[in-house]
This record gives sequence, structure tokens and C-alpha cells, in this order.
Amino acid sequence: MIEYRSIRVALLGAGSVGSQVARLLLEQGDELANRIGARIELVGIAVRDVDAPRDAALPRELLTTDAESLILGADIVIELMGGLEPARTLILKAISSGADVVSGNKALLATHGPELFAAAEQVGAQLSYEAAVGGAIPIIRPLRDSLAGDRIDRILGIVNGTTNFILDRMDTTGASLEDALATATELGYAEADPTADIGGYDAAQKAAILASLAFHTSVPVDQVHREGITGVTAAQVESAKRAGYVVKLLAICERLADPETGEEGVSARVYPAMVHRSHPLAAVHGANNAVFVEAAAAGPLMFYGAGAGGVQTASAVLGDLVAIARRHVLGGPGTAESTHAELAVLDIGRITTRYAITIEAADQPGVLATIAHVFADHGVSVGELEQTINDENGRATLVIGTHEARESALAETVRALADSPVVTSVVSVIRVEGAE
Amino acid sequence: MIEYRSIRVALLGAGSVGSQVARLLLEQGDELANRIGARIELVGIAVRDVDAPRDAALPRELLTTDAESLILGADIVIELMGGLEPARTLILKAISSGADVVSGNKALLATHGPELFAAAEQVGAQLSYEAAVGGAIPIIRPLRDSLAGDRIDRILGIVNGTTNFILDRMDTTGASLEDALATATELGYAEADPTADIGGYDAAQKAAILASLAFHTSVPVDQVHREGITGVTAAQVESAKRAGYVVKLLAICERLADPETGEEGVSARVYPAMVHRSHPLAAVHGANNAVFVEAAAAGPLMFYGAGAGGVQTASAVLGDLVAIARRHVLGGPGTAESTHAELAVLDIGRITTRYAITIEAADQPGVLATIAHVFADHGVSVGELEQTINDENGRATLVIGTHEARESALAETVRALADSPVVTSVVSVIRVEGAE
Repeated sequence: MIEYRSIRVALLGAGSVGSQVARLLLEQGDELANRIGARIELVGIAVRDVDAPRDAALPRELLTTDAESLILGADIVIELMGGLEPARTLILKAISSGADVVSGNKALLATHGPELFAAAEQVGAQLSYEAAVGGAIPIIRPLRDSLAGDRIDRILGIVNGTTNFILDRMDTTGASLEDALATATELGYAEADPTADIGGYDAAQKAAILASLAFHTSVPVDQVHREGITGVTAAQVESAKRAGYVVKLLAICERLADPETGEEGVSARVYPAMVHRSHPLAAVHGANNAVFVEAAAAGPLMFYGAGAGGVQTASAVLGDLVAIARRHVLGGPGTAESTHAELAVLDIGRITTRYAITIEAADQPGVLATIAHVFADHGVSVGELEQTINDENGRATLVIGTHEARESALAETVRALADSPVVTSVVSVIRVEGAE
Repeated sequence: MIEYRSIRVALLGAGSVGSQVARLLLEQGDELANRIGARIELVGIAVRDVDAPRDAALPRELLTTDAESLILGADIVIELMGGLEPARTLILKAISSGADVVSGNKALLATHGPELFAAAEQVGAQLSYEAAVGGAIPIIRPLRDSLAGDRIDRILGIVNGTTNFILDRMDTTGASLEDALATATELGYAEADPTADIGGYDAAQKAAILASLAFHTSVPVDQVHREGITGVTAAQVESAKRAGYVVKLLAICERLADPETGEEGVSARVYPAMVHRSHPLAAVHGANNAVFVEAAAAGPLMFYGAGAGGVQTASAVLGDLVAIARRHVLGGPGTAESTHAELAVLDIGRITTRYAITIEAADQPGVLATIAHVFADHGVSVGELEQTINDENGRATLVIGTHEARESALAETVRALADSPVVTSVVSVIRVEGAE
């Protein structure tokens, strides 16, 4: 057997991902050593409570509550604690003490990414974070390296498994959001407090990370427009289904021209949208994730797999770890995060999209003309239109699909419709993204 | 504007991919320089005939027929000539003269990969080949780096766009192989001589490359079992469709235990197989490619996109180029090809699969029992069975789906069926891979 040198690895956090990372490191030591050309020595695991129950049995002697001491002397620090602090401070300490860092902390990267990348670049340290987006799916490295010679124009991502499970269930069973959420909770796909998922917060963090990387521009999470799925109704899902669409919560990162200045900018946003069933994203079922990328030369690409899960996400962490460890063996620094483009981040009003609007109106002469005027007044062009009359109350229901228009014009159109005396109510508004 | 140092790049070949690489390098010089931190200087393009027509207009002064002189003094050589020679000799020369190499030459890598990787490793040169498999789809880098900490168990790849176009067309229109091939030729999806595609040779080369990489084992193309699609009939496609399957040409790379020794081995093989419509690969239409990967920790992953096309494949070449160029800027060597596992490559007889067998037999008492005996005698267990009687000739058609069994036992069963006096003919035999 070959005698390999050791690379000292400190693990911060032993939750569902962390405990699996530790288990795999301990079980696959020989195999990883062969691949790396050095032995990974797990020197310790920092936890809040050494006696807490774990998903995987971990050697008691590796556990410590003293994260600060643990990172001193580590060659590589793996941060899987989650949350902003103390994760941020510990990563900065690890970097300044000469360690490379692997993190799966999406909240931290989406909030303090630029600070952390700058700190790493200053000392030539690596900061890898494949596990932060898309769980097991290799997406960070393909965007950063494989597409490094291409121009990424657009990313449409299903990056939150909980909401995809809920929306998929609403689509396949006709369940209400409430019932689908209850099922998700029961099956362990949703947490006791599902706000981060169904409110779109988790997806917004991932959109910030993807947009920053794809467009070489810092896009902090507070510049990501965010709408969750709490407003999605069974009727919307059913109506979308009839029209050949499925409702998905999308994280959208887009390169576009600012409609006012004409200058190139970027947009990052999260909202539920209708996706045509012929689009590859429509076939992403259950709690799976997928990231659909449109690049100028490569054309459309899709990366699909498990978006969460302890052992699945551990695969991404270990991939980063092995890549960094190989550099320790072969020498030389890695790739620094690139933000040279620093494009303007455009607010939601400046992007272009399509709306599907359902309104209820009085069924009397001239109503359609009045409604058509509202659209025309705002420069919004109408595509499909379907009118049905409700026998019970004699009111008309109109489902109106717009052509592409500026988000601000679409939003004003909806406001004007709500204010129109002929409109009884705006029943539903949803965007259309993955078109036929 | 920042003054960057130059990295000298020599391009060998200006066919559909090469000419697009040259065009993109010339058009996107500033953007690439920002990403790399150095300027890519295209020092020349080696071609057979400087006056031949090109897909993209290239500066005449860059063209040369003297490839040997061109590579001297280049920092990076991009080889897109195709074929074994002179590509092999030129790449070895480039490596020995200190250059890194990007190649999209699947035939060369599948045949002489070990020699080329060894030469590169000896001098610490990089040899990248993302464009060799899956066109624009990032698959080499994800397998090599992102999944470096995982164990890849199985790859099912649709890696040839021509045959996928043909089989998809047979599935959607009911066309014969001949007619679907004619359409593919007409639309430019098939070459004048389609042998490399429909014979499975192209897919076999890609299977060799994927298996070598995924299993850290040299798998030369002559150890890849290869069956093309020339035997696929409209009746098979139709019958598969009725059963909820679609026929796809699959490149399969699998880690498995040798049934005789119990030792771990690998298999690489290419054949048409029935894939259940619920499998993500079933939704890969037209000339698209997709690689479905099953990893121990990550679970199932899929990488999807354009498997061919000049500009699409150029994206993969430029990704490799930028990654290598960044290393030139930041210093340090890259990752060498790893073959430490060197598992045995098992022949087709040792793998496990399922067959769908259609036979025509006499409709008389005892026939079913005789046929059932043939299966039992070879230790093959029967799953589904469907018998229909042909009114015209009074013969019975049996469609038999087996359970999983060793390929050698299945093949012997088919031979025994053909020899059985009660069997009029073995109408069709096809494997089942992407199960429900």
C-alpha cells in the first residue's frame, strides 16, 4: 500500500449533510486517497452539542464544541453549520489562517458572498460551494468552468424541492396548496416551519448565487425579487393544466438590456410561473431539482437530480473537497471568483415577461371593449383570450394571456383592471416563463 | 483597459467545430481576457487546404498547412482534426514541446487515451476533452471533478444525436428505419455515410471514454460491446410503445461483480434497448443527447443538451481552453487522468440485463410448456408474457419479457428458442434497460 501524506480536514456542523460527509470520509478513506494522492485526515467535527442525536454514527472523540480551535491547523475547512453567524466569522478565520474552505451555506453565500470571496482571493485560498445550490446536482462547477468560454443568457431553475413536491402534487392530484403542504410535511419534504421554502426565501438565495456566478456580477439576495407559492391556488394549477402548462416555482437569472438606458443588466427573481409541458423543466417531478441553462453557443442545457438530502448533498461537498485536495497535492492555487462584469442588477419592473390573467366581469355590452382598452392603454398586447359565462351569477370569466411586455406595464395593467368598474374581481395573475 | 499578457493558442482543424472555435476566439477576445486574466492569442489554424470553404469566415493569414511548425511555441494546442493520425502524433509533439492540449477527438481518445494521458502526466501537461462526449453538454468535468468524492455505479447515455433522431422519429411517426434515416440525412442530422452513427461506432467511442473516466480504469474502445440500430424495426418500436417503452440507443457503463469470480469489474456496451417512458432518458427527443448517471451518494443525475453542432461543441472546447488558460495565469498544474482502480473489463456475457423476446410459434397443445421449459433450462425467469393468435396463418405470436438474468444465459435461451421445433421464428430480441 502506498504511504500518502495527510491533508487535515476540519468539519463544522454535523447535521443531515455534515454527518453524511463525516461518514463517507471515514468509510471511503482508501478510495479517496487513491484518487487524490493524499490521505484525508478528518481532524475533528465542531458541533453545538456533542450528545445530540446524529443521522450517522460518528466517533465521539472527533466531536468538539470548540470550532475556533479546530480550524487552526486545518488544511481544509468544511462549513456545513448553516446560518450567517458564527459561520461567516469562522470561514473568515479559516481563510486567514491559510485554509481552503468548502461550504454548503446558501444563506451565507447569498448574503456575504462578495466579502468571503474577496477574503479568499486576497490570500489565494479556495472557497467552493457546489452543495449550496441544487444539492447533489453538479451546477456550480459546470457554470464556472465548463461554460467559462460561453455567454450565459438565462437560467431557469427549479431549485427548491419542497415547493416542487407541493406544486407537482397539486398538478397530479388536484390537491389544494394546504393539503399538498400537509402531505409534504408528513413525508418529510417540508420542515415544521415551511416559510423558507414556500415563501421562496431558499430559492431566492440560490438565485443570488447562480446569478452572481453566471454573470460575473455580485447579485446579493436582497436584490432578488421574491414571490413564494403561498398565493398559488388549485384553480390556477387546474387552469394551467387545461392550457397545457404546469405551475413551477422558478428561480430566474437573466441577462437583458435595461429598457430605459439600453445598457446590459441582469435580473434575478423567484416566482411561481406557468411552464409549458413540452419544456424539459415540466418533467421535473417530486422533490427533484433541475437547472435549465441557455448559453449563447452551447444552446439549452439541463442539469437534473436530487436537490436535497443528507447523503446526496454530501456528494457535492466531497466533490469540492477532492478537487481542492488534489490541488494541495499538485500545487498551485485554484480559480478565484470572478465579478469583472459587474453589470447593473435590474429591478423587477424592468424585465420582460408574459402574464396569464383571470378576471371576473359583468356580462354586458361593451365590457370586452373596455377591458381591451385597459391593455392597449398600457401598451400590453393580448395573445389568447377565453371567455366563459357563469350561469349562476351571469358574470363573465375572462382568461387573458398577454404577449411579452415589461413587468411594470403588466403590473399597472392588472391594477387598472382591478380599478375598472366593469371588472368584478381579478381572480388570478400568474407569469408564463417556459413557453412552448 | 488592462494590459494582459498573451497565451498563445494553436488550432488544428477548421471543420464545423474548429471554425466556430476560431470565430468565437476572435470575436470574444476582450470578454475572455477579463475572465482569464490573460489574452488568448490565436497564433494560427492548421488546415489541409487553406482554400477550402469554411462554416465561419477566418482570417486568411492565420491559416497554414504546416501543423508541425504551428504547435512549436504554442502554450495551448486545440486539436479538432478528428481521426487517429496525424492527430495522435501532433498531440504527442505538442505535449512534449510543453503545451497543454484541448481535444474533441473521440476516436483518438477512445483508442489511444492511455498513451496520451501518460504522456501528459509525465510532463505535467493538461489534456482536456469535454467536447469529445455529449457535444455542448458538460459531462467530462462533472464526472471527473464534481463526482470525484462519490462512487459512480452506472451511466446510461444517449450520446449519438443521429440515432436518437432516427429512433425518436420512428417512435413518433411510426416510420421505418430506412425512412427515418432518409429524413435524418435530408435534414442534415445524418452524414452521407451514416455507418459510424447507426452502427454504434461513435457511441462506442464515447462509452469507452465515459467508462474510463467514471471507473478510473482504462477501457479501450475494442473492449466495448457494440450493436447499432440497423436491426431495429418499426414493429419493435411500435410494440415497445404499446408496452409503455421507447427504444433508445444506449451507451451503458456499469460497475458490477464478475459473476464468476465475484470480483468487481466494469462493463461498457452500446446497444438499442427499451427504456420506460417514466425514465428521464425517454424524454430526450430529436438529435439531443443526455447522460444519466447513478452515483452511490448523489443518486440519479442527468445532464442534457445539444450533443453535436459546430457552435454548440465549440462551447465545450472554449470551456476547456479557459480552464487551462486560467491555470497558466494562476500557476500550478491541473488534474491528471486517474486510472488507479484498473478494474477488469467484463465481456458482454457477464453482465445482467432483461430481454424482450418476440417469437412466432405453432398454435398447438404443449407449445407454451415447451417454450417455458427452454427458459427454465437456462435459468431465465419469465416476467410478462403476451400471446396473440394470427388469424391468417393460425400461428401464435408470443411477446416474452424476462426478469434480470445474465446476458450469456439470455443469449443461449434465444439460440435454444430458435432451434426449438415448435418455434417458427424468433421475430425480435431487444434488451430492456431504463426500467419503470
